[in-house]
Amino acid sequence: MIASPQSFENRSREPLPQSSRVYVSGRIHPGVRVPFREIGLTPTRRHDGRQEANAPMRVYDASGPWGDPAFEGDVRQGLPVPRREWVLARGDVAEYEGRPVRPVDNGYLSEQHAQFASQAERNRLVEFPGLRRRPLRASAGHPVTQLWYARQGIVTPEMEYIAIRENLGLSADTDTGAGRASLHRAHGTTPENQPSWFSRFPQRTPRQITPEFVRDEVAAGRAIIPANINHPELEPMIIGRNFLVKINANIGNSAVASSIEEEVEKMRWSTKWGADTVMDLSTGRNIHATREWILRNSPVPIGTVPIYQALEKVGGKAEELTWEVYRDTLIEQCEQGVDYFTVHAGVLLKYIPLTANRMTGIVSRGGSILAKWCLAHHRENFLYTHWDEICEIMAAYDVSFSIGDGLRPGSLADANDEAQFGELRTQGELVRRAWDHGVQTMCEGPGHVPMHLIEENMRNQLEWCHEAPFYTLGPLTTDIAPGYDHLTSAIGAAMIGWYGTAMLCYVTPKEHLGLPDREDVKQGVIAYKIAAHAADLAKGHPGAQFRDNALSKARFEFRWEDQFALSLDPETARSYHDATLPQESAKAAHFCSMCGPHFCSMKITEDVRRYAAEKGLTDAEVLNAGMAEKSAEFIAGGAEVYVPAAG
Amino acid sequence: MIASPQSFENRSREPLPQSSRVYVSGRIHPGVRVPFREIGLTPTRRHDGRQEANAPMRVYDASGPWGDPAFEGDVRQGLPVPRREWVLARGDVAEYEGRPVRPVDNGYLSEQHAQFASQAERNRLVEFPGLRRRPLRASAGHPVTQLWYARQGIVTPEMEYIAIRENLGLSADTDTGAGRASLHRAHGTTPENQPSWFSRFPQRTPRQITPEFVRDEVAAGRAIIPANINHPELEPMIIGRNFLVKINANIGNSAVASSIEEEVEKMRWSTKWGADTVMDLSTGRNIHATREWILRNSPVPIGTVPIYQALEKVGGKAEELTWEVYRDTLIEQCEQGVDYFTVHAGVLLKYIPLTANRMTGIVSRGGSILAKWCLAHHRENFLYTHWDEICEIMAAYDVSFSIGDGLRPGSLADANDEAQFGELRTQGELVRRAWDHGVQTMCEGPGHVPMHLIEENMRNQLEWCHEAPFYTLGPLTTDIAPGYDHLTSAIGAAMIGWYGTAMLCYVTPKEHLGLPDREDVKQGVIAYKIAAHAADLAKGHPGAQFRDNALSKARFEFRWEDQFALSLDPETARSYHDATLPQESAKAAHFCSMCGPHFCSMKITEDVRRYAAEKGLTDAEVLNAGMAEKSAEFIAGGAEVYVPAAG
Repeated sequence: MIASPQSFENRSREPLPQSSRVYVSGRIHPGVRVPFREIGLTPTRRHDGRQEANAPMRVYDASGPWGDPAFEGDVRQGLPVPRREWVLARGDVAEYEGRPVRPVDNGYLSEQHAQFASQAERNRLVEFPGLRRRPLRASAGHPVTQLWYARQGIVTPEMEYIAIRENLGLSADTDTGAGRASLHRAHGTTPENQPSWFSRFPQRTPRQITPEFVRDEVAAGRAIIPANINHPELEPMIIGRNFLVKINANIGNSAVASSIEEEVEKMRWSTKWGADTVMDLSTGRNIHATREWILRNSPVPIGTVPIYQALEKVGGKAEELTWEVYRDTLIEQCEQGVDYFTVHAGVLLKYIPLTANRMTGIVSRGGSILAKWCLAHHRENFLYTHWDEICEIMAAYDVSFSIGDGLRPGSLADANDEAQFGELRTQGELVRRAWDHGVQTMCEGPGHVPMHLIEENMRNQLEWCHEAPFYTLGPLTTDIAPGYDHLTSAIGAAMIGWYGTAMLCYVTPKEHLGLPDREDVKQGVIAYKIAAHAADLAKGHPGAQFRDNALSKARFEFRWEDQFALSLDPETARSYHDATLPQESAKAAHFCSMCGPHFCSMKITEDVRRYAAEKGLTDAEVLNAGMAEKSAEFIAGGAEVYVPAAG
Repeated sequence: MIASPQSFENRSREPLPQSSRVYVSGRIHPGVRVPFREIGLTPTRRHDGRQEANAPMRVYDASGPWGDPAFEGDVRQGLPVPRREWVLARGDVAEYEGRPVRPVDNGYLSEQHAQFASQAERNRLVEFPGLRRRPLRASAGHPVTQLWYARQGIVTPEMEYIAIRENLGLSADTDTGAGRASLHRAHGTTPENQPSWFSRFPQRTPRQITPEFVRDEVAAGRAIIPANINHPELEPMIIGRNFLVKINANIGNSAVASSIEEEVEKMRWSTKWGADTVMDLSTGRNIHATREWILRNSPVPIGTVPIYQALEKVGGKAEELTWEVYRDTLIEQCEQGVDYFTVHAGVLLKYIPLTANRMTGIVSRGGSILAKWCLAHHRENFLYTHWDEICEIMAAYDVSFSIGDGLRPGSLADANDEAQFGELRTQGELVRRAWDHGVQTMCEGPGHVPMHLIEENMRNQLEWCHEAPFYTLGPLTTDIAPGYDHLTSAIGAAMIGWYGTAMLCYVTPKEHLGLPDREDVKQGVIAYKIAAHAADLAKGHPGAQFRDNALSKARFEFRWEDQFALSLDPETARSYHDATLPQESAKAAHFCSMCGPHFCSMKITEDVRRYAAEKGLTDAEVLNAGMAEKSAEFIAGGAEVYVPAAG
């Protein structure tokens, strides 16, 4: 039985320090209300005693209503559904009865099987107790996808929501915007000011992201807004290389362990730390019920791999999979509200023998299942042969494609081989065909790739897949560190994110070894937030560097509490500081544990500045000096400015 | 008082699993005996019951005699000194009385001060009890540096040692060498086979590293062998971009915490996990005594920043530093056996004002001290003005330079600015002058640099510093993750290592927050071993990828114990596996916890292979098919090969 609601209310809802929830409303669509976390900062204390205020720092917030202390909801009721009225207002969808839930949806072959399941299994099968809505479906003879609207020139509420979100609610003309500008410094990561060697894959993020820009990117297929019309709890977000790099966290009730309550809480926990989407990779029993719990409580898009559930419906025997079972599963999940589907339609019969002599064969679960099916029947992959029908279904609910890479390399030795790149070319063909049906589409990528082979992946994907967003798993840059694959892959993820990958699928420290627990999920999310942010910085996203600058400023000014609050993981930062200097007074101290009270380089720098200021060397003069050459002249001609310190 | 010897003998000497110590002897110099760790592997079990042996995997081992289970030494005696006879055999050094150790060397202004120091402090001042040798110094009127020998065409024992070490003791003509070749796969990371887009900074590592190649690289200044003639405990290693990327771990008795015994154990602990050099950054009391303990027990080169100790000698007042105090400290440390010195001679007066308007000023401790001195006296940095004398001292002991980057950026906002690059140009001038004196030299680099600005650092350093090895701290690629800076910096470290950086200074999770403990040191070392190895792979070092391949093969064949044993951190890998599947039987099981017994992609791949084999589709045929196009033909024309599986 699912635990009491209290058990859901603990750690994932603990507020982050110095933080409050703010909302920014839309102008085109007043119903749009975009949440942010705002981190309050303490003032800077100057040597002369003056205090200077530091503007609060607004950050992107994926946690949904669960991150709003004022929200009093409960996972048994699910989240509010503000998006439902936007969907209905478009007037192109209709409610209908929907497909009945059957025992096989939860892994039982019949009602009888379900009744005779072990007590333990039955205890876990708890239907979501909240409101059950009848599903919506397209009713006006055209796709109801964001891609279709974008092509018609329509700026949807979802698009305006995203524009505000990507800008962190700042506009160029507000004070806060000016504050932001002043935190942009020195080496010019802004798009207007990119040096020539800046980017091999030019990004085109504007200084201010407008709703029209969002529409244009979606219309061109360069970005997707995963947003099933049956997922009204969703807070819209965008996946595209001209926006902030996103990260996905995987959860799922693997056959060996875990429960529904763990999965729901993993979803909330991962979005608290910043996961932008969550994939439910459940296998085994209770798949349908678990997914319902997750969807009704998720503010972020939920992705799935429908072949996993289809396989359960045929008792785990790949060769018994049929188009009909798969189609039934697609509709089941479309009606529930899944936002994107991984579909391994690129695993063609002709590519399978290319894997037989690999170091690690086929490591994708979906790829393996389809390879087995293809060989067993000696027929072409039924996902490929039914692609157009799949597109038609997805267009009616606005489920996005994530075209799977079933033949991705499972080791460095297999990276960038013929099997992988053969499938990638087919992914490109499938993108075109999905677009013809008005379906939003991204492509999945590897995997295990050494650093020098990463760029080729991105270049080929952009070219062969027509700039559809790329969504990669890492890649891991070495195979020798099981237990640290969040790190081996964060290296590759940061790089491929810079090169243009739009979303990074996280890897936890347990990858290859075991099932991630709560702490592993957090470690994976944080590692990937780092990778994504590093990529945003390198891409010159205008919303990226000012958080680094604010934290660096706090660090330099010994505002320890602000430094903690601005960090990705305030709790860990604080605990590491406390491990060496636990006293509360140390957090106001103008030194830190690394160097001790008499030997702090930051303190010495402050002395240098003060010395310079006392002697009349102002910031402005130094700024005017500018270049090294000028500075040399300045000093050479300014002997009176400097006097030797008293012996 | 220092703890009993037993306390040193625990965790850092625990053997790694399935490992034994082997030695490979020199041919030119029979006294050379290079240690490796050899990991024994279990056989592969084929479906037909056949077993195939897997050759043991030999790995680079930095742990010295402490990693040899047969070694019975004790930290109070120090390590054996096999290198001493090589030094003496060259006939160009002489013993002399040496400088007496004074109270001020340990931070006491006089003997009286030392006597009246607090009991706690005195308890920590324990002199190394082992043999005290009289120091050696050049006596033949020429430098006794590896650079000097290399220029004379002499292949020293140190050079042969390194050639064997970098090759992992494998030669092209041995069986093991052939085994290595067979583990090189597919995409050709070997130098002969680099694709055109492979490298913007071409490396030139040959397939087999010969002693002559080592000599040539050292003679050209592209590599250094830090090896003070007074550090006979040393096992030689090389730092240069055409060799394996090395990592450094920092230790040091910071003023706020830690003890001598902790520092010695940190050194052993970090080399156990793979640190190639260790920097002793001690400040405060007992610097001399701590360093003696470390040197006498260290198989790896020890680096220091002599200005730290010099500052202690003048009571922590930067403006009271003098050339005489600094010179005295250099000689003190040369005689003790320090292998490389960080010298911040590039912090010129003219660059200092360029830092005043930075986000984070001057963050290098050495840089701060010298900036303060320069401003206080309004004179040029005395390390710069005395550079030639410093070179002469170091040439007489073969201490290598690590030219400090005192103005490195302390935040992304300050990366690649005029202050930093001004100093880098001066570092280049200092390299030339050090080479004129026959002194081996590398240059230090940043710091905090966003990904897109990393490459410029490497390119400028290679050009301006004449290809002297680069030694960087990270760089961190974002500032927003205190508590995870081992990770934010491993991203930058891997990239700059690929671009050509020869050694990476580790960063621990406590960076910016507190002092690293044992676990932090391990986390920092592992993160940097990952970064260095990822760089070696991308550079195409011939000794890199076969460990990845061996581990991937073990993974694919469900040889769990081998997978753990081959990993950088076997203990963690095993514990993560056990967290989900603790039963011993699970380690022989042909499935893993992620997917459960009926749904393992690797298992399915095996089925695919077996299916293919049964139906007559052999590996050889698939290999012959080769490309996707050929494969398509093959399948199209081979319908009789495939038959539908039974029902």
